[in-house]
Amino acid sequence: MIVVMRHDAKKEHIDKVIERLKDKGFKVHLSQGVARTIIGAIGDKTRLENGALEAMPGVEKVVPILQPFKLAGREFKPEDTVIQIGDIKIGGEEIQVIAGPCAVENRDQLLETAYKVKECGATLLRGGAFKPRTSPYSFQGLGEEGLKLLAEAREKTGLAIVTEVMDPETIPLVAEYADVLQVGARNMQNFFLLKALGKIRKPVLLKRGPSATVQEWILAAEYIMSEGNYDVILCERGIRTFETATRNTLDLSSVPLVKQMSHLPVVVDPSHGTGKRQLVAPMARAAVAAGADGLLVEVHPNPSEALSDGPQSLTPEDFGQMMEQLTGVARVLGRRIAGDRS
Amino acid sequence: MIVVMRHDAKKEHIDKVIERLKDKGFKVHLSQGVARTIIGAIGDKTRLENGALEAMPGVEKVVPILQPFKLAGREFKPEDTVIQIGDIKIGGEEIQVIAGPCAVENRDQLLETAYKVKECGATLLRGGAFKPRTSPYSFQGLGEEGLKLLAEAREKTGLAIVTEVMDPETIPLVAEYADVLQVGARNMQNFFLLKALGKIRKPVLLKRGPSATVQEWILAAEYIMSEGNYDVILCERGIRTFETATRNTLDLSSVPLVKQMSHLPVVVDPSHGTGKRQLVAPMARAAVAAGADGLLVEVHPNPSEALSDGPQSLTPEDFGQMMEQLTGVARVLGRRIAGDRS
Amino acid sequence: MIVVMRHDAKKEHIDKVIERLKDKGFKVHLSQGVARTIIGAIGDKTRLENGALEAMPGVEKVVPILQPFKLAGREFKPEDTVIQIGDIKIGGEEIQVIAGPCAVENRDQLLETAYKVKECGATLLRGGAFKPRTSPYSFQGLGEEGLKLLAEAREKTGLAIVTEVMDPETIPLVAEYADVLQVGARNMQNFFLLKALGKIRKPVLLKRGPSATVQEWILAAEYIMSEGNYDVILCERGIRTFETATRNTLDLSSVPLVKQMSHLPVVVDPSHGTGKRQLVAPMARAAVAAGADGLLVEVHPNPSEALSDGPQSLTPEDFGQMMEQLTGVARVLGRRIAGDRS
Amino acid sequence: MIVVMRHDAKKEHIDKVIERLKDKGFKVHLSQGVARTIIGAIGDKTRLENGALEAMPGVEKVVPILQPFKLAGREFKPEDTVIQIGDIKIGGEEIQVIAGPCAVENRDQLLETAYKVKECGATLLRGGAFKPRTSPYSFQGLGEEGLKLLAEAREKTGLAIVTEVMDPETIPLVAEYADVLQVGARNMQNFFLLKALGKIRKPVLLKRGPSATVQEWILAAEYIMSEGNYDVILCERGIRTFETATRNTLDLSSVPLVKQMSHLPVVVDPSHGTGKRQLVAPMARAAVAAGADGLLVEVHPNPSEALSDGPQSLTPEDFGQMMEQLTGVARVLGRRIAGDRS
Repeated sequence: MIVVMRHDAKKEHIDKVIERLKDKGFKVHLSQGVARTIIGAIGDKTRLENGALEAMPGVEKVVPILQPFKLAGREFKPEDTVIQIGDIKIGGEEIQVIAGPCAVENRDQLLETAYKVKECGATLLRGGAFKPRTSPYSFQGLGEEGLKLLAEAREKTGLAIVTEVMDPETIPLVAEYADVLQVGARNMQNFFLLKALGKIRKPVLLKRGPSATVQEWILAAEYIMSEGNYDVILCERGIRTFETATRNTLDLSSVPLVKQMSHLPVVVDPSHGTGKRQLVAPMARAAVAAGADGLLVEVHPNPSEALSDGPQSLTPEDFGQMMEQLTGVARVLGRRIAGDRS
Repeated sequence: MIVVMRHDAKKEHIDKVIERLKDKGFKVHLSQGVARTIIGAIGDKTRLENGALEAMPGVEKVVPILQPFKLAGREFKPEDTVIQIGDIKIGGEEIQVIAGPCAVENRDQLLETAYKVKECGATLLRGGAFKPRTSPYSFQGLGEEGLKLLAEAREKTGLAIVTEVMDPETIPLVAEYADVLQVGARNMQNFFLLKALGKIRKPVLLKRGPSATVQEWILAAEYIMSEGNYDVILCERGIRTFETATRNTLDLSSVPLVKQMSHLPVVVDPSHGTGKRQLVAPMARAAVAAGADGLLVEVHPNPSEALSDGPQSLTPEDFGQMMEQLTGVARVLGRRIAGDRS
Repeated sequence: MIVVMRHDAKKEHIDKVIERLKDKGFKVHLSQGVARTIIGAIGDKTRLENGALEAMPGVEKVVPILQPFKLAGREFKPEDTVIQIGDIKIGGEEIQVIAGPCAVENRDQLLETAYKVKECGATLLRGGAFKPRTSPYSFQGLGEEGLKLLAEAREKTGLAIVTEVMDPETIPLVAEYADVLQVGARNMQNFFLLKALGKIRKPVLLKRGPSATVQEWILAAEYIMSEGNYDVILCERGIRTFETATRNTLDLSSVPLVKQMSHLPVVVDPSHGTGKRQLVAPMARAAVAAGADGLLVEVHPNPSEALSDGPQSLTPEDFGQMMEQLTGVARVLGRRIAGDRS
Repeated sequence: MIVVMRHDAKKEHIDKVIERLKDKGFKVHLSQGVARTIIGAIGDKTRLENGALEAMPGVEKVVPILQPFKLAGREFKPEDTVIQIGDIKIGGEEIQVIAGPCAVENRDQLLETAYKVKECGATLLRGGAFKPRTSPYSFQGLGEEGLKLLAEAREKTGLAIVTEVMDPETIPLVAEYADVLQVGARNMQNFFLLKALGKIRKPVLLKRGPSATVQEWILAAEYIMSEGNYDVILCERGIRTFETATRNTLDLSSVPLVKQMSHLPVVVDPSHGTGKRQLVAPMARAAVAAGADGLLVEVHPNPSEALSDGPQSLTPEDFGQMMEQLTGVARVLGRRIAGDRS
C-alpha cells in the first residue's frame, strides 16, 4: 500500500501515519519527493480499517497495490476452476449453453421449451420460479410450483436446472430442486444472500450487477467463497450506461479480463445484455469468440405470449440457427459446444 | 399506450396487435402516417404482460404514456406526505437532520456522537448495526449489540433512531429498536426485503440505488406502499458515473424532480454522495437550497479511527459549523432546521 | 409525433398545441384517455423548432416516432453501402483490417510496421500525424512530415492510408495524402469539421464519441452526408462508463444495432476500446463474430518505446497470431479477411 | 510516480524498468514486498512518454502521484484567480449571473431579453450566434448578424457579452464582438480550438464535456493557459449518465472539488444541466449554496417560440423570482449577487 501525503502535510502528520502503520504491523518505507512525501507500507491490509488512513490529517490518498480478493484470484490459484454438475463441466474445454424461458409459466411452456433447447444442444435449462420485477404489479413467478416443473423437465430431458434464488430463507427450498442457484444482478451485493450461499454445496451462478465494476463482481464471488463454497460461475449480463437503444451494454471485454484476474468460469447472457432479440445471436457468437465458457439464453415457444422478457426471447427456431453458428466459432478457438451432436 | 409499428409491418401484423389489445379490454385507435402506422390504446396496462406487445411481429416500439407507479405518485395524492416519528415530522416545513457514525462501534463512540449532534441541532441519530461491505474481510457491524446501544442513545438524548436492515428475517429485530428502518442503496431492488417492509408499521428510509433512475427508485417505494406501509422517505445518496474524483455523483436535481413526480419526502446523504469530508458541507447546503426535506450526515468523534467511512465523516466541530450555515439557507426558503435553537 | 398533455392541462392548452401543429402543416388527431389527452401529429418535423412543443404550457412530453436521420438510415436506403478505396471495398463480404502505430514517429518505425502488417493481411495502414492529446504536454504528432511518411509507406507497400484530421483548415492538407480521413472520438460532434468533410470526395472514418448514443453517432454521419459526401465508415471504439479496469467499454452490440438502423459500414477499434494489449485479440475476434466490416488495430514494432498508446499496441508477432484466428471466425460467417493469403 | 510490477515479473524486467527511469533522469527507489516489487520514481514525468512504462514487460500498473496539470492547479497558484471584464469581476466575492436566450434569433427577442435580465440583476448577456446542433436539420444560428445584435445589446444595456466560438478560424470574428468567448461542452477537447484561444487576450468560458472527468476538464483549461491566456472560467453544465429524466446530471460536487484542485473561477449552467424549466431555479440556488462564482441561465421572452432549448428556458418573470432567492442564499455565504440592487 502507498500513502501519498498532501503537499502541505506537516512532519507531525507524516509521523502519525508511520506510527499508525507500525502499530498495525506494517513495514514502512519513507520516500521524500520534491512535491510529495510518499509512504510505502508492506503488511496485512485487513488489519487496518477501510479508509482509516485517508481520514488522517495530511493524507492525500492511499493507493492499494494488491487486488482486494484472494480466493477468487488467479494469483491464489493459477489454474482454471472447472465446476462439475453431474456430467457437465463448466470452465473446461467444452462450452455449455444454458437456455430456457425467462419465467416458468406453465407445464406445457416449460416442457416444450426444454425438449427443443435440448435438441439444439443446450445442456442446462434456465427458468425463473421467483422473479425479481421492477414493478410490484408485474408477474412475480410461480414459486415452488415452478421449481417442481423444472424438476420434472430435468427428469424428462436430462437437462440440469439453473434457477434464481432471491432470499436467504428460500435457499433450502430452491436448492432442493436446482442444480445451479442463480443470484440476480440486483442481488449481486445482497451480502446476507451471498454468505448464505457460501454455506451450501451447490454451484452458484453470480450475475454481474448493473453498476458493478469487475473488481466488485469478483469480490461478491469472494463473499461466497470465503464461507466455503468454491463453485462460483460468473455471468456477464450487461452494465448500465447512457445508451438507451439497448436494455444494457453487454461488456464482453469483461470476459478476457476476468479470465486474467480470476480462475473462475465466466458465462455470458446476451438476452438481458441487449434486451433485443435480433442482437442475441450476434452477441452470443461474439461472447464465444471472446472466450466465454458458456451462454445463458432466453428461449420461449411464443415470445409474444411470454409473461416476461418477450422482446429478448428467441424462438426455438432462432435458437437452433444460433447454435449452428456457435459450433463454428467454438471450433476456431479449439473448443466445442457441449451438447452439439453434429 | 402508443404502439409504433415497423415501416414494413404487414396488415396482418397490425390486425393481430389490435386484436390482442381489444382482448385485454383496451380501447384502440389506429393512425396511419406516411411512414408508420401507430396504434393508440387506452386501458389497464397491468392486464398486459410486460414486453408482450414489443415481442409481436411488426412492432417497432411501445411508448408508455403514464408513469408506472400509482400510490407513490403526485397524481394519485397531490399533497405532500408528512411522516410523523414521535414529535418529529419529515416532509413538512421543518428540515430534519439525521446524523451519527457510519457504524456503531462501541458505547463511548456512539454516546459521545449522539450528545454532540443533538447539541448542534440533529433530531435523529443514524448508526449501522448491520453493515453491507464490498469486501467480506471488512468490519460487518455489531449486530444486535449495536441496536441496543442505539436504543440507549435514544433514551439518553431523545434522538430518534435510523438504522439499516439488510434482510427480511432481521426486520422484527431491527424494528424492535429503530424508529426508522433504512434500506441501503445496494438493496433498493431487493424485492423480498421491500415487500416485508411493506407489512410493518414503521417508516422506511429508502436509499436510491447507485444505478437506479428516479423512476425505478419511486417504483421501489411503490413496492413497500403496495403492501400497506405508506411511510416511505426517499434518500438521494449519489449515483455511479464515470467520475472517479468523488465516491458517487450526488444527483441533487433528483430532489426537485421527485417532488414533482411524488408526494413522498426526500432527504439527501452528502456523505456517501461525495465520499470526501471537504465536500459534505457545501453539498449539504446545496441540498437544502434544492428543496430537500432533510439530511443524512456521517459524524464521528475521531474519523481517522472510524471502522468505516472515515474519509467522509465530519468531526463534531465540522458538523456544528455546517449546521449554522444550513440555518441561513433554510430561512431563505421559508423553512427552518428542526433542532435549531438559535 | 405524439404530444402527451399533462393530466391537468386545460382545454385552451390543448387547443393551442393543435393550432400550432396545424399552422406548421401537420395533420392532427386527438385522443382523449382517462388520465391524459394525447395528440398525434403527422407532418414534416423539420418545420417545427426543436423543443418548441415541450415548452408550451400543459405539455408533458413529446414522443418522436421516426428516427431523426434520413440519408444514413436503412429505411432511406435498404441495401448496404460499400465504399471503394482503390481496390479495397469496405462494407462488402470482405473484412478489412486497418493496422499501424497510434502515431507516426519516424520513417523506420512506420515502414517497418507497414511491411509487417501488410504481410499479416492488413489492407490499410493507420498512423496519426496530428494527435489529439488530453494533456498539452504530450507528444502532438509530426504534422505534415508524418503525412509524407504515410504516403511513402503507401507507395512502398500498397496499403491505403487512414489518418486523423482534427480541424477544418487542415482538411486540404490531410486529404492530399490520405485515402480515408479519420474523425476522432472527441471530434464526433465538431460540426464545423463534419460539414467541411461533407464537401470533399474522400471516405471519412467517423469514430463514435465516448458519450454518444448510437443515434447521435449516426446523426453525426448524417451531418457529413447532408453536405454531399456519402462515403462514411462508422467506427465503434468504446464508450465511457464507470468501469475503470478498461480504458473504455467496447460496445460491440452497437455493431448489429447500427447494421439494423443504417446501411453504412461499421468497423471496430479494439485497441482504444480496451486500452489493454491482452484484450485486443479476444475483442477483435468478438467484433468479427458480431458482424463488423473491419477492424482498426494499433501495432507498434516496440510498444514500450511508443510515443503514445504503448500499453494497447500489439507487437507485429501478436498481430500475426490474431489475424490467423480472425480468418477462422470470418469463415463461420461466410466472409473472409481481405488481405488473407492462406 | 509508482511502478507496480506483476507478481511474476522477472529480475530482468525490474532491471529494465529501473534502467529506463534512470535514463530519463529519475531518482529511483526499489521496494520488495512479499507479493509485489514496487519502484518509486522521482523526476520530471513529461520526459517520459505516456504509457511507455505500462507497456514494458512485467509492469502491472503505473500510479501517478501528482496531478497532470500545473498552471491551472491550486498548488501552483494558491490564491483564487479573479477575472476582470470591464467593471465585472468573476471569481471574487460577487456572484455574476450570465443570462439570455440560447440562440440570438432576432433584434426584438434579444433586446427585450437583455433589458429584462439586466433589470433583474444579470451583469452579462449570453446568446448563441453559432449554434452546435445534434441534427444538421436544426437551426444553426445567425452567424455574424447575431454577433452584431449582441454588440448592440451591450451598447444599449451595458451588459457584457458571452457567446460561443466553435472553430479556430472564427475566433477573430467572435473576439471582435464578445467580451467572453465560450467553448461548448462538445468542444471541450477540440485541442486546435483550445490552443488558438490560448493566443488571444480575452477571457474564455470553458464548459465541461458531457463525459469529462474534473481532471480532464482542468487539463483542457491547462491547454488554453499553456499558450498564455490565463483567464479561463470553468462552467459545470452536467454530465451524461444513465438517468433520462433530466437532459444531463448536473454535478454540483464539481464546484467545491474544482475550488480545491484549481484557482480558476467556476460557474454553473442549470439550464443545460437539467433541461427542464422547473428544475432551473432550485438548481441555481443549490449552485450558489455549493460555492459557485456565477450562473449561466437561459431566458427567453417566449420559450415556446424559441428556436432552440425552449423547454429549459425561463421566462423573464421566472428569472426575476429566481434572482430574489439567490440574493438570500448568497448572503448566507457572505457573498452578494453582483447586479442586485435590493
